[in-house]
Amino acid sequence: MSRYTVGIDFGTLSARAIVADAATGRALGSAAMDYPHGVITDALPDGKPLGPDWALAHPGDYWACLGTVIPEALRRAGVAPADVAGLGIDVTACTAMPVDGENVPLCLKREYASVPHAWMMLWKHHAAQAYAERMTDIARQRGEDFLARYGGRVSSEWLLPRLWQIAAEAPEVYDAADRFIDAADWLVQRLTGTDTRAEGIAGYKYFWNRREGYPPEAFLAALDPRLEHVARDKLRGTLRPIGSRAGGLTPEGAALTGLQPGTAVAVGNIDAHVSMPSVGRAMPGDYLMILGTSNCHMFVDDAERDIPGICGMVEGGILPGLYGYEAGQSGAGDSFAWFVERCCPPQVHEAARAEGVDVHRWLTGRAEKLRPGQSGLLALDWWNGNRSILVDAGLSGLLLGLNLSTRPEEIYRALIESTAFGARMIVENFERHGAAVRRMFACGGVARKNPFLMQVYADVLNRELRVAATDQSGALGSAIFAAAAAGLYDSVGAAAERMGGVDDRVYVPDPESVRIYDALYREYAALHDLFGRGGMEMMKRLRQLR
Amino acid sequence: MSRYTVGIDFGTLSARAIVADAATGRALGSAAMDYPHGVITDALPDGKPLGPDWALAHPGDYWACLGTVIPEALRRAGVAPADVAGLGIDVTACTAMPVDGENVPLCLKREYASVPHAWMMLWKHHAAQAYAERMTDIARQRGEDFLARYGGRVSSEWLLPRLWQIAAEAPEVYDAADRFIDAADWLVQRLTGTDTRAEGIAGYKYFWNRREGYPPEAFLAALDPRLEHVARDKLRGTLRPIGSRAGGLTPEGAALTGLQPGTAVAVGNIDAHVSMPSVGRAMPGDYLMILGTSNCHMFVDDAERDIPGICGMVEGGILPGLYGYEAGQSGAGDSFAWFVERCCPPQVHEAARAEGVDVHRWLTGRAEKLRPGQSGLLALDWWNGNRSILVDAGLSGLLLGLNLSTRPEEIYRALIESTAFGARMIVENFERHGAAVRRMFACGGVARKNPFLMQVYADVLNRELRVAATDQSGALGSAIFAAAAAGLYDSVGAAAERMGGVDDRVYVPDPESVRIYDALYREYAALHDLFGRGGMEMMKRLRQLR
Repeated sequence: MSRYTVGIDFGTLSARAIVADAATGRALGSAAMDYPHGVITDALPDGKPLGPDWALAHPGDYWACLGTVIPEALRRAGVAPADVAGLGIDVTACTAMPVDGENVPLCLKREYASVPHAWMMLWKHHAAQAYAERMTDIARQRGEDFLARYGGRVSSEWLLPRLWQIAAEAPEVYDAADRFIDAADWLVQRLTGTDTRAEGIAGYKYFWNRREGYPPEAFLAALDPRLEHVARDKLRGTLRPIGSRAGGLTPEGAALTGLQPGTAVAVGNIDAHVSMPSVGRAMPGDYLMILGTSNCHMFVDDAERDIPGICGMVEGGILPGLYGYEAGQSGAGDSFAWFVERCCPPQVHEAARAEGVDVHRWLTGRAEKLRPGQSGLLALDWWNGNRSILVDAGLSGLLLGLNLSTRPEEIYRALIESTAFGARMIVENFERHGAAVRRMFACGGVARKNPFLMQVYADVLNRELRVAATDQSGALGSAIFAAAAAGLYDSVGAAAERMGGVDDRVYVPDPESVRIYDALYREYAALHDLFGRGGMEMMKRLRQLR
Repeated sequence: MSRYTVGIDFGTLSARAIVADAATGRALGSAAMDYPHGVITDALPDGKPLGPDWALAHPGDYWACLGTVIPEALRRAGVAPADVAGLGIDVTACTAMPVDGENVPLCLKREYASVPHAWMMLWKHHAAQAYAERMTDIARQRGEDFLARYGGRVSSEWLLPRLWQIAAEAPEVYDAADRFIDAADWLVQRLTGTDTRAEGIAGYKYFWNRREGYPPEAFLAALDPRLEHVARDKLRGTLRPIGSRAGGLTPEGAALTGLQPGTAVAVGNIDAHVSMPSVGRAMPGDYLMILGTSNCHMFVDDAERDIPGICGMVEGGILPGLYGYEAGQSGAGDSFAWFVERCCPPQVHEAARAEGVDVHRWLTGRAEKLRPGQSGLLALDWWNGNRSILVDAGLSGLLLGLNLSTRPEEIYRALIESTAFGARMIVENFERHGAAVRRMFACGGVARKNPFLMQVYADVLNRELRVAATDQSGALGSAIFAAAAAGLYDSVGAAAERMGGVDDRVYVPDPESVRIYDALYREYAALHDLFGRGGMEMMKRLRQLR
């Protein structure tokens, strides 16, 4: 009997596979691999230089990972391929590229290897920013409905502005492309020999919707006549709901992964979204934050609502049967890392070394001893711009309340608090627009490793917080989707109930901290609106002066 | 013939004497000494603990310095006592204390050694803050004229709120005090056997004015009936203009200093103010900034004007014959030092060490290579509150425009620029109220050592800046006042013309930098008004939360 599933999670820099016990979710073995080409930002592999906002990836790296981490995870787990019922794949998105009629990426063909627009563009590729802004303007002018589902603004991290840029700036690539496809769909198609595309990816990244499909051709033609039939011509494929079976492994796919031919392969998924079932069976009103370099917020509900400032709302986009809402904080752990690397004096590094702990842990230990509000510091967490709810990459970080006694651990704490305030701003925005957030969960490296930060979040949000029991929410999530796709459970929810779960520890708000953080949050909200909403365009003007 | 004068400058932590050639101002020898008791902040010498805002000094330290640094400077200069025509003394102010009928400080008498209020209070002693605020309120309610000469607000750094506190909290000290006297006047009285007090000190620190004298007794009685006759009873003495001769050295004074009996001793002076003649003969409209840990601004003019937000305006208070205006930036070099000590990562310290330069110089070298505005950063220079023109110690530092690429040298440059913007705010405030600033000078350690900072100031202020030729503006200034007091010149101005002067190097504004800094200054001014003027009391509220 097949008692195991494999989940593989493709992040920005590496891929990780786990072999999970389908009855319990326990990880029996895992393996990871960094992409040989990493993130391609300065120059193509052949030396061709790239512009400042470019961030590409090599599809061959992703393919190679399949053939490395799955067999290795199986070996470590001691699980026989015959006992594996299904495979689930998630990848960052939008991570799309042009392919030819044989599903071969154009960038891997000699004639396009030197053409930047022929490569796979990562989520953090921002070269299409100007196209995204024009697309927002045109959609607003035309009163296009679809925009309201995406917080009211087009992001350069999504497919259509990128396709517009390619059509305009590299028409030979646009014309040569048989289709454009996201990495997750490409891997699933190649492994199964089908033309399956995931509704989740099309929903969040391509403006597709079950009711309305892609944006109207009249709108696309208004952008650029070449885009009029882009959905029909370049986005061909069978859209399937997440959690369903895309197909069985082809003999070639089986040979590559070490699994058996015919093994169920789940419809592809987005890396953040697969984490949702890792904390257990979801109910309407559940909210999950992935706390890491940046913070991803996911909310599932049984009602459809237009929420401004979010990244997208897709029916069945995160979990089957629920409306999935995504929002995000574009800077979190990366601003803590910035502080440690750029702003933390030698005596702190030395003290941490003397105590045998890393600098983050040392600072956390000191920060923990402070009372809320004690430092007099307040920060705006916009070191990497603001994704939700302002959707403005031009904003920047702010630190206020500095004095000659200000200590590094005080700044570190203020940075952590600022991300908690940013999270509260997103949650309150959901509730202000009619959504009821009922249970809150967190997962990700920071949530698992930093109980102090979790307590700050609980106090600032004034909500109980529970943390995923797994360190690998992504790979476990894909293994859960694989279990559902393989028919081991009759739904993703049923699989999640058995395979997902939370730690025993519950972070409960402390009433005294809540009281002080309420006052600090009012100050944060005032700064947020002052610098983030129209009235005071100072951060933009400073950026222009650069 | 007597061709030399001695100037001695008592700072917060140490005293320095120079022996100057009275014809040229050249320093032939100098000597310095740290005060043995330093700044007394935590506990009295007998162990009695002090409150958080206390900052006291030991008058015996100051007396001991006279007997050490003057003989040593003479020895190093190779100058015979008979060739010294005069001695000038300047001390930080207000640095007052109670003395008995023999001019013995009460704190040096056994019965008061344990009473904090009997000690000499340094300028940075802020324990009387609440009294200063009540005094401002009462003066405003009563419509007292004198307040307008002091920027409209009473500072806890001045004498009267301190006397009020002593009368209220330590009435036995108040009653036992024959007089209260500043350190500079006390040293001069002890050395000359006279009862001379300096108009400059009474003017800037005691609310005294040539036309009106001390504040009216009715006002003082309204504060506290015990204060009604404080001027008549406790501030007795002969007020003399600065630049005049207080008297000749007594035999005891001569024995202590190694100078000859009868040597002319100038009326005492305030340490910052004596620097004014160190840059040469002043004209109405001249402006001098002392750039150091904090920045002191002095402006002399031939007209009397009420300028809000300054520290004080005194006729003849800085130079004889001119109205002297003082303003200040309470944080400057100390915020750069804070950054280096608390916020500068190991790799910067290591790179500086590898290049054999100190961290400030390394950061300056890197900051210098940036263009104005390039970093996108903007700071409010309020790490130590704001003295002018907001007169608000409750304000705090702000840093805006941070992102994940922000580098230490960029923050360092932003801090330097913020102090230049703060200086421009003060200069513009003078001009907005009718004063015409004509020539601008700088002196002090930072001005002498950091050409990059001087260029930033020139560019931000859009004015040519000249820097004092001496590293010891304070001691040289006192030597210049001594030369006038000794009759070697017929005025301080004539002495300054020969003994003071500036470096050849002139800092000339760069038009392109001026253009960008004009734009940045508009942003600074917007932040300044937003956080500093009433509308947004955020910094105060954060302080209260502490």
